Amino acid sequence: MFRILLSVILLFSLTHATDTLPSWNEGSSKQSIINYVSTVTKEGTVDFIPVKDRIAVFDNDGTLWSEQPAYFQLFFAMDRVKATASEHPEWKTTEPFKSVLANDMHGVMKSGEHGLIQIVNATHSGMDVETFQEEVKEWLKTAKHPTTDRPYTDLIYQPMMEVIRYLEANDFKVYIVSGGGIDFMRAFIPEMYAIPEEHIIGSSGKVHYKDGKIMKDADIYFIDDKETKPLAIYRNIGIRPVAAFGNSDGDFAMMLYTEANKKAKTLQLYVHHTDEKREFAYDRKSHIGKLDKGLDYAKEHNWTIVDMKNEWKIVYPFELIK
Amino acid sequence: MFRILLSVILLFSLTHATDTLPSWNEGSSKQSIINYVSTVTKEGTVDFIPVKDRIAVFDNDGTLWSEQPAYFQLFFAMDRVKATASEHPEWKTTEPFKSVLANDMHGVMKSGEHGLIQIVNATHSGMDVETFQEEVKEWLKTAKHPTTDRPYTDLIYQPMMEVIRYLEANDFKVYIVSGGGIDFMRAFIPEMYAIPEEHIIGSSGKVHYKDGKIMKDADIYFIDDKETKPLAIYRNIGIRPVAAFGNSDGDFAMMLYTEANKKAKTLQLYVHHTDEKREFAYDRKSHIGKLDKGLDYAKEHNWTIVDMKNEWKIVYPFELIK
Repeated sequence: MFRILLSVILLFSLTHATDTLPSWNEGSSKQSIINYVSTVTKEGTVDFIPVKDRIAVFDNDGTLWSEQPAYFQLFFAMDRVKATASEHPEWKTTEPFKSVLANDMHGVMKSGEHGLIQIVNATHSGMDVETFQEEVKEWLKTAKHPTTDRPYTDLIYQPMMEVIRYLEANDFKVYIVSGGGIDFMRAFIPEMYAIPEEHIIGSSGKVHYKDGKIMKDADIYFIDDKETKPLAIYRNIGIRPVAAFGNSDGDFAMMLYTEANKKAKTLQLYVHHTDEKREFAYDRKSHIGKLDKGLDYAKEHNWTIVDMKNEWKIVYPFELIK
Repeated sequence: MFRILLSVILLFSLTHATDTLPSWNEGSSKQSIINYVSTVTKEGTVDFIPVKDRIAVFDNDGTLWSEQPAYFQLFFAMDRVKATASEHPEWKTTEPFKSVLANDMHGVMKSGEHGLIQIVNATHSGMDVETFQEEVKEWLKTAKHPTTDRPYTDLIYQPMMEVIRYLEANDFKVYIVSGGGIDFMRAFIPEMYAIPEEHIIGSSGKVHYKDGKIMKDADIYFIDDKETKPLAIYRNIGIRPVAAFGNSDGDFAMMLYTEANKKAKTLQLYVHHTDEKREFAYDRKSHIGKLDKGLDYAKEHNWTIVDMKNEWKIVYPFELIK
């Protein structure tokens, strides 16, 4: 399925090579993206941005693939708890593991941040980075998303992949700046999105170097969210972006940081989850991907707000196979 | 002078476009670099490395520019102490600032690591990153290296610049992975070496985000040296390099990490400071750029060891102006 999908995405891109953003309906968001790119790449004009400064940053969860009913990385961690439970008999009677093993999502959530960190520590440490990434790759081959029963890699947004390709075709460097785990993302994004490892920035755990290997330790090193997203951009990229794409208040600081770029015209775009039928509908009150303060600001400041329901012809690549 | 030098480097590169590594004497190091690059870029052979995996990492101080009699960044910090002393009358009587103001290098060194951190904190914090980089740029315009009386930017190694360009011409991605401060390096490396900000990894201080700016705080966040260099490579690049260039034991772990790459043939190169006349001669006993354990290992394992005195036709670009 995975290979078929990649072929379809490729084929679709080729047959629609003359269209820009073929999966987007004509509308204000498509127009604002195309206007922006056309304007800043026109040499000899005041808004022209030199190639070296064309840095675009994208959130991942909820911006490039789905994030409901919970971040996919949490499902990975829960599946890893189940897969390794026989080595930890104590988990049967200890929270949050007891709830994970009983498939009790409510119980897992009740364990709170402390419980989630325990789950992450138990499943994301004690091995080297390369071994961990192999585990993620293996998991993605068979794991199914709980409400759609599809492979998680089916649930990437075709219209956003087109935006990434369109930017790259115009000499933008595209970076992922996400709250997701850096090793988790590096296990699938290079192949699924065709974005290289070195352009993937995320949250990370502590690591240490031993005998030629990077070993993952049980402790959080850096959470890449809200006000720390600009810090991650500063550390890993070092130039202020000119375009930022997100879907939640977690991306708001990164978008403000981009907007504050004094040297260049900028673009800020929010993916607004308005499509209950094809995807999910949520914003101000969601416990995942909450978009509240950012939405108000975006409206006031004329940022691009994508209405998924009305502006996207299709959401997922598999809708192309018909 | 700066512009003249850049023109000369460019002109030299153009007129010698048919030569590979024109500032290198024929010898084992030049041969090993060319052999390596030719071998791994030959499609259809067992040693071929796909373009996406062609990651090369370079130390900076002592590998791409001089580092004696002390790291140039320390001279910057000392000059900043002097420039801002009027705002800090207490410095006249407090170490390590008293020694800095008296130009007493021995006193500065005697203040030890704690003293150096105080000097760095006093000069590298309390402003936003962009303002700090402007200070570095301004300083580089007029500051002179203490023993050669030349601008610091004169003291980059022309033969190593040619290695960087040669690798890039063969589709390698070149990264700086240095103990130097990330903001200090980003202020001059993009223009001097033509390596972009996002390929520059270094030590960094704590920062926080405020009102669209990255503010530098007085505290060390990450020292990029020895066993932490592989961690920095992992965090910022995410793929194991295939080629590593250094000059000291501080680079040893990064080179071992590269050598441990199981997927590709690798190259490890040490610049060995053997040229007392044109540059400096030091290795096992130097307090800066000590090369001891690494030198033994390099000899035993057939790493490339550059004998600066005998293998480099010229050291610095200004030697081309004659």
